[in-house]
Amino acid sequence: MKVSINGLRIAVVGAGALGLYYGAMLQRGGNEVHFILRRDFEAIKADGLRVFSVNGDFHIQKVNGHGNASEIGEVDLVLVGLKTFANHKFEELITPLLGENTIILTLQNGLGNEEALASHFGAERIMGGVAFLCANRGKPGTVHHLGEGKIIIGEFSNDKTTRAEKLAAIFQKAAVTCSVVSELKRARWQKLVWNIPFNGICALMLKPVDALLSHKETRKQIIDIMREVIEAGNAQGLKDKLEQSLAEKLISFSEGLGSYKPSMLIDRIENRQLELEAIFKIPIVEAMKKGVYMPKVEQLFAFLDLSENHN
Amino acid sequence: MKVSINGLRIAVVGAGALGLYYGAMLQRGGNEVHFILRRDFEAIKADGLRVFSVNGDFHIQKVNGHGNASEIGEVDLVLVGLKTFANHKFEELITPLLGENTIILTLQNGLGNEEALASHFGAERIMGGVAFLCANRGKPGTVHHLGEGKIIIGEFSNDKTTRAEKLAAIFQKAAVTCSVVSELKRARWQKLVWNIPFNGICALMLKPVDALLSHKETRKQIIDIMREVIEAGNAQGLKDKLEQSLAEKLISFSEGLGSYKPSMLIDRIENRQLELEAIFKIPIVEAMKKGVYMPKVEQLFAFLDLSENHN
Repeated sequence: MKVSINGLRIAVVGAGALGLYYGAMLQRGGNEVHFILRRDFEAIKADGLRVFSVNGDFHIQKVNGHGNASEIGEVDLVLVGLKTFANHKFEELITPLLGENTIILTLQNGLGNEEALASHFGAERIMGGVAFLCANRGKPGTVHHLGEGKIIIGEFSNDKTTRAEKLAAIFQKAAVTCSVVSELKRARWQKLVWNIPFNGICALMLKPVDALLSHKETRKQIIDIMREVIEAGNAQGLKDKLEQSLAEKLISFSEGLGSYKPSMLIDRIENRQLELEAIFKIPIVEAMKKGVYMPKVEQLFAFLDLSENHN
Repeated sequence: MKVSINGLRIAVVGAGALGLYYGAMLQRGGNEVHFILRRDFEAIKADGLRVFSVNGDFHIQKVNGHGNASEIGEVDLVLVGLKTFANHKFEELITPLLGENTIILTLQNGLGNEEALASHFGAERIMGGVAFLCANRGKPGTVHHLGEGKIIIGEFSNDKTTRAEKLAAIFQKAAVTCSVVSELKRARWQKLVWNIPFNGICALMLKPVDALLSHKETRKQIIDIMREVIEAGNAQGLKDKLEQSLAEKLISFSEGLGSYKPSMLIDRIENRQLELEAIFKIPIVEAMKKGVYMPKVEQLFAFLDLSENHN
C-alpha cells in the first residue's frame, strides 16, 4: 500500500452510522473519501455531513457523495460498513472500485463477511476489523457519535503485515484509535460475546441496555449467553483463548452504556431487517462444527427469526 | 360428599372462560350453581349466560350471579378458576362458602394452587384438577368453547377417595369428560409440558399456536422445552413417569389446534397480568429443588418477566 502525501483514496460502501462516522473521521484526517449514498444523498449534497460527537461536533461541507460505485473508480481502500443482509450487493458495489492493490476492509458485524468478500474478490485483498462504536444516524446528513470508537483490524489471512500497520496509522492520524491483531477471528468472537446477547435481547424485547441489566433474571441470561459464546469461540482453535472473566468485564462495561440502543434494536425500531445471519446463524453453525451447542443462543435466535416472519 | 337429588350446590370463584364454561355445564347438568361475577355481572343479570360451543350452543337464562361470596353462603363444592396472580384473594372469596364438608376443587393453571388453598383452608378439603379446555371469553355474558374440555381431577393428598369418584360422576352427568387420577402431581406436570412452551412463546411473540409450529427453529425450541419439563417432572418422584414420547404426542395434538390462542396470549393481548408465578417460576424452583436445571424454560421466563416490567 502506497500512501501519498494526500492520504488514501477511500470509498465507503454502506454509509450507515458506522460508514458515515469513520468516513468523516478519515476525510477530516486528510484522506480523499468517497461515499456511496442512498438515504442521505440529497441532504449531504445540499449541506454536507454533520457529526455530533462526544468528542466534539464537526461539519464537513464538501463531501464526495455518489449514487453508484462506477462514478468513484479505483481506490486504495474500500471501507465496508454495509448491513450484512445486503452482502448480495458486494459485486455491484465493490467491483468498480478495485485496482490491483486495493484493500477491502470490512467493519461489518458478525461472521462470514470476510469469507464472502474473499470468494468474490480474492482472499489476499481482504482485511477485517471490529468496531467498538456507539453511533446512530440522525436526520439525513447527520450522524450521532455517542461513545467509544476504537477499531481493531487484522488480515483475513491472520498474518501480520506491514499494510495492516500502515492502515492502522492512517486511522490513528484521523484520531481513530486503531490497533492491529494477528488473530482477527479472536476479535470477531470477542465482539460476538457482547453482540449476541445485547443486540439480540434488546431487539427482541424492544428495550435498551440498562433495562436488561436492571432486570435480575435477564442479566443472568446475558451472562449465560456470554459463556456459551466464549466456549464456542474458544473451540475455534484460537491461539489466544478468550478468558472466562470476559463476561463479567463486558457486563461492567455495559453498565456504563445507560439506555444505549444497540444497532439491532435501532434496526427493529426503524423496521429494517435484522442482521441475524451474521450475528446468530453463522456463529451457531460454526460452533456446532466444533461440537459446541449454544442452547440459549439458539433459542434467542429462534425467537428473533420468528419475529421477522411477518405473516 | 352427600349428593342430593338436586345435584350439588356449587360456587364458581373466578368466572373467566374456564369458570363460566364449567359452571354453565354443571348448571345445565342439574346442579345449583352460583357465580361470583365482576366483568360479566350486569350482562349476565340482564340476559343470562350464552355458551357458543363446538358441541352446540346453549343459553342459560336464569343465572345466580353475585357480587361477593357472602351472598352465596355454604356450598358443597367451590370450583376455583381464578387467575393465579389473584390467589391473594382466596380468603375473601372462599371463606364465606365453606361448610364442614365443602370441597375446594382448583382447576387453575400451573403449580402452587393446591398448596396455597391448603395453607388457608386445610389440606383435607383440597382437590385439584387439570382442565384441557380451549375456551375464550367473548363479549360480557358469553363464552366461546373452541374445543376439548376434558378434566382430570385428583386429591391434593394423592389418595384415591370415593368423593373424587362422586365428583367425577357429577361432571360426567353434566357432559364433561372427567377422570380421577391418584397422582395429581403427575397430571399437573404433564399439563406444564404443554403450557410452558405454548403459553410462554405465544404470549412473548404475540403469535398463535400454528405460527410457532410452522417456524422450524421455534418448533425445535418447543420440543427442547418440553423435554426439559418432562425431565423436571420425572424428578419429582412420580410413581408413573412421564414418557419421553409425550413431547412428540403433544406436538401432533397441537397441529390440530390451528391458530388457537392460549390463555396467556389472550391475557397479553387484553393487557392482563401473565400467570408467570404458577406456570414458570414455581416449576423452575421445584425443578431446581430436585437438581434439574431447565435452561430454555429459564430464559423464556426471564424474557416474559422482563416484558411485564412496564418501566
